[in-house]
Amino acid sequence: MDFYQHVFAGNPLDRCEVERRDEDWIAEKAKDPDSRFLPMRGPNVLVNADAAGNGEPALGWLTWQDLEPHVNGAAPLLLGLQDGATYFAIDLSADENAAVAVEAMGGYRFEEARAAAENLLSAPEAGIMAQGRAQVNWHNRHRFCSVCGYPTVVKRGGQKRECPACKAEHFPRTDPVIIMLVFDGDRCLLGQSRGRLQAMNRYSALAGFMDQGEAIEEAVAREVMEEAGIRVKNVRYHSSQPWPFPSSLMIGCHAEADTTGINMDDEEMTDVQWFNRSEVLLALEDKSEKLRLPGPIAIAHHLIKSWAYGEVS
Amino acid sequence: MDFYQHVFAGNPLDRCEVERRDEDWIAEKAKDPDSRFLPMRGPNVLVNADAAGNGEPALGWLTWQDLEPHVNGAAPLLLGLQDGATYFAIDLSADENAAVAVEAMGGYRFEEARAAAENLLSAPEAGIMAQGRAQVNWHNRHRFCSVCGYPTVVKRGGQKRECPACKAEHFPRTDPVIIMLVFDGDRCLLGQSRGRLQAMNRYSALAGFMDQGEAIEEAVAREVMEEAGIRVKNVRYHSSQPWPFPSSLMIGCHAEADTTGINMDDEEMTDVQWFNRSEVLLALEDKSEKLRLPGPIAIAHHLIKSWAYGEVS
Repeated sequence: MDFYQHVFAGNPLDRCEVERRDEDWIAEKAKDPDSRFLPMRGPNVLVNADAAGNGEPALGWLTWQDLEPHVNGAAPLLLGLQDGATYFAIDLSADENAAVAVEAMGGYRFEEARAAAENLLSAPEAGIMAQGRAQVNWHNRHRFCSVCGYPTVVKRGGQKRECPACKAEHFPRTDPVIIMLVFDGDRCLLGQSRGRLQAMNRYSALAGFMDQGEAIEEAVAREVMEEAGIRVKNVRYHSSQPWPFPSSLMIGCHAEADTTGINMDDEEMTDVQWFNRSEVLLALEDKSEKLRLPGPIAIAHHLIKSWAYGEVS
Repeated sequence: MDFYQHVFAGNPLDRCEVERRDEDWIAEKAKDPDSRFLPMRGPNVLVNADAAGNGEPALGWLTWQDLEPHVNGAAPLLLGLQDGATYFAIDLSADENAAVAVEAMGGYRFEEARAAAENLLSAPEAGIMAQGRAQVNWHNRHRFCSVCGYPTVVKRGGQKRECPACKAEHFPRTDPVIIMLVFDGDRCLLGQSRGRLQAMNRYSALAGFMDQGEAIEEAVAREVMEEAGIRVKNVRYHSSQPWPFPSSLMIGCHAEADTTGINMDDEEMTDVQWFNRSEVLLALEDKSEKLRLPGPIAIAHHLIKSWAYGEVS
């Protein structure tokens, strides 16, 4: 890897672009005893407490034989290929009993996806789960055609949904979000958003969804102006992270402050402040009483760290 | 501007994040004689042949008074503010007579949006049109709730749609697309996609929609492998461009080839080839007989140019 690889990136599966155009191949693989299925249940993913027999938890992959009695019509969603085996995600949330039955198989339990990635899973498994989590969520919210209102059907192992009535095709969506650390020499701009956990002293980089018809650099400038009333210059891309809650692409940037007086949007934010590098360095080591920062699971952590360590100026 | 500004970026309107949360403010501005409305009709936008009286074409902005007899229930979509005036887009495609009536006002005609941006409009106006074009398209394809199938209603001047039945909120979508120029020393990789104009000798950078659960750099590597069978390294972000056909965000990158033998996906591509820098330099000046490249409207042109001119290596 020669780029900044965040949690939820690094999915090792081959997404098999060619094979996933072939409905027959997908149907055959969905019954193949060598295929593996990852059950999801709303925001939760199946974990196997002791997958390799060494006491280490991992994703709870099941065979079709194990799963079939509990599927109740749920469509397997193709994730990809690895070492000759085909991997699918499957959403069991429509049937409460299915999830109970799967957990009763012993050694398996559903865990909240973000917590699982943070505490239990290897990087490749967190990447696979990110893909499955985003797919399951999208299918759950797109059972009907947005063009005509008719129920849609899953095609290409979940790569699209089609409307039998008006023939519209619908593809999974990924929402670009810009997240940016604004700095002014030895201080950086951090905020507390409304609607997130407003724990004492917890701050992060500013962020927001991209709007239609704007470039990344324009979205950064707009969002910083909206949330903090600050003009920026020299917007620079740093790295990106898939964030499957439910389906964002976090586009991480640094930007220099061109003005420094804060004029906060108090409908979106509860606080925006400049913090000195010394305070930020303490917070990165969890030693600050004034400031708590996001952990390494979040791209914000790495944007802040690379500035605080002097990699950006 | 301290970043690479492409056509369709540079929209000068203030998207008025605070005001657009206020339905009453929007309703009032929609009737304000100082407000301006940009009629769209499917893929076309209204152009005024002589907006400033100097024979130069520009976007065809109408007042509510001019427009009201032809609106037929179409919802004004808020674009933003400039110099105290409020700007909206409005889709007249549901009523053939409306478009005819507007053109009959004299001096106005509907032009295909991409051609208008390429040939008629200033950069700020192309930016405004990009926002309007993407919004109108999204609303056209989201009249029904994808969660339950019920007809949805426009809220916040078009910034969202709501379902009166299940209360789901739906926000406009922007699809991230990666587009990358792969190079190997003094040659670069260009392709011809199936489904686009397969004019003789016309090639461009490889590109594709991002998939769910992947970082930008991963998507670049996957897409180049899928389309050309080539492994890449050192993926670097270059610039981005809003591309409102219908609602893409083009994320432009350069990448170095790590392998060089081409293994083309012949369902997606009709040809992929290495081209020498000398040939590319000729093509950029429209002097090559072997190679024709996209024009400056497309980010591909600038990715190719910056490599050919030695800005990337």
